[in-house]
Amino acid sequence: MKTNLILINNDIIDPEEINVHPFNRGHQFGDGVYEIVQVYNGKALHAEMHMENLFNAMVQIKIPGFYMIEEMVDFTTRMIEAAEVTDGLLYTQVTRGIGPYELDFPEQCEPELIMQAVPLDRAALAEKRETGVNLITVPDERAVKCDLNTLNRLPEILARNKARVGKCYDALFVKDEKITEATEASFMVVKDEMLWTYPQKLGSVHSNLMRQLIKEKLAATLDMQVIEKAFTKEFALGAEEAFLCGARCEIMPVAKIDRRLVADGKPGRMTLQLQAAFEDYIREQTK
Amino acid sequence: MKTNLILINNDIIDPEEINVHPFNRGHQFGDGVYEIVQVYNGKALHAEMHMENLFNAMVQIKIPGFYMIEEMVDFTTRMIEAAEVTDGLLYTQVTRGIGPYELDFPEQCEPELIMQAVPLDRAALAEKRETGVNLITVPDERAVKCDLNTLNRLPEILARNKARVGKCYDALFVKDEKITEATEASFMVVKDEMLWTYPQKLGSVHSNLMRQLIKEKLAATLDMQVIEKAFTKEFALGAEEAFLCGARCEIMPVAKIDRRLVADGKPGRMTLQLQAAFEDYIREQTK
Repeated sequence: MKTNLILINNDIIDPEEINVHPFNRGHQFGDGVYEIVQVYNGKALHAEMHMENLFNAMVQIKIPGFYMIEEMVDFTTRMIEAAEVTDGLLYTQVTRGIGPYELDFPEQCEPELIMQAVPLDRAALAEKRETGVNLITVPDERAVKCDLNTLNRLPEILARNKARVGKCYDALFVKDEKITEATEASFMVVKDEMLWTYPQKLGSVHSNLMRQLIKEKLAATLDMQVIEKAFTKEFALGAEEAFLCGARCEIMPVAKIDRRLVADGKPGRMTLQLQAAFEDYIREQTK
Repeated sequence: MKTNLILINNDIIDPEEINVHPFNRGHQFGDGVYEIVQVYNGKALHAEMHMENLFNAMVQIKIPGFYMIEEMVDFTTRMIEAAEVTDGLLYTQVTRGIGPYELDFPEQCEPELIMQAVPLDRAALAEKRETGVNLITVPDERAVKCDLNTLNRLPEILARNKARVGKCYDALFVKDEKITEATEASFMVVKDEMLWTYPQKLGSVHSNLMRQLIKEKLAATLDMQVIEKAFTKEFALGAEEAFLCGARCEIMPVAKIDRRLVADGKPGRMTLQLQAAFEDYIREQTK
């Protein structure tokens, strides 16, 4: 994979050669949105749905649509080819572009789209899947609406750092005593052989295509019921299984939360079934 | 003023000539902090206190201190000279620097400091001061802690845009029915000849040196009492006067909130006294 290439507004170039202008509003205000696409076998998974998500997020924060969804899907294909991505992630962000230093939208708004290939050690993740990962909980002090993938990620960065300092894989956010999600993955538990996860509609968790895939396809294939209902840490600790799901970790068993075991701490049967079903799904989708 | 110069890590250069790397964490995550210094008569106001604020914010988000406060104060002086700033603002931001695409802090963290001169039409602001400005209220859906000046400013951008669409100067954030502050200024009202403003200690308003100056110096000079207590919009509408205070607007009378007059809508006596006392203060500090 060539990590020294980026796509910027339709051109693929070496990032050492290009300017992101220091007055870009992404750089000054986090004024933009992003999307992470999984790549397997040189093919993007759900590229169109991801670019729809990105486009929708742009509309929500009022960045004018300067590329069609189809063009952005085409960019993913071109970037995967140019950067020779076989397995990894493709990161795309759109900012409101360059402007004078003020909060007001610039009069002449020329948004900037950047795409970069991100290496991912899927073998290391598969190893972690055999033991499961440990998590901590932190207060969810993020902005009230977290459904959009915006570039305002400092609370997530600080939560992740707190997890790492505590030798944990990631942090779970807790809001009004309920677990919302992790810093870049959704959180699910298995209770009475059903999947429980925080409801999307409250706007407190990201729109996450892995979560959506489980809900709409994988769970149905495996005849599992999905319940979208907020639950506490105690509920999660008393569950039969727990796992994270996201673009980076796929479906990752959780062994401990705040140093306490979830069930016997071993990766659960349904979690592993979902991961296997996901692997079948990607083989089929990206062959 | 030369707006085509920026200071970046000790070098003053033309922004067209420099790279902000596209993988700078400021650009990807809003992973940084900022400070705005007022410049009058070619001199920075409270440069040292501002740089202390910046340094403190860096410590809070765990960006290692790579310059001493004295060096950063020295940068403000150099930048004011190089960019020939007589009147305006000096914007400084520090990001965690370049890293691979992941939330974790980079192993090799080389922070980036950028300073730019920002023009400001103080004559236009003085004109606005004669009539007062109109504000709208919006729900305060920002991150729970707003005391640090972080680069996560999208909720403020969207609130400002909402104000502009409604032909207003700015937006006031309302949290639990109490007015916290505006998008880049503190909010105060005069009730029973005392100044009321949202308490700093709750972490829901920015650390603002204009607010601090009023509280610690100007109000005392004018024998005004400052009360730090949360209050509702109805309380503000029933007040004798209302004003914003911040680096950009200085002390700005508020005529209307959500299309309703504050008192008779005219700039209040105490507000104008504070602005006059502020002008005396800057004349003395920057002569």
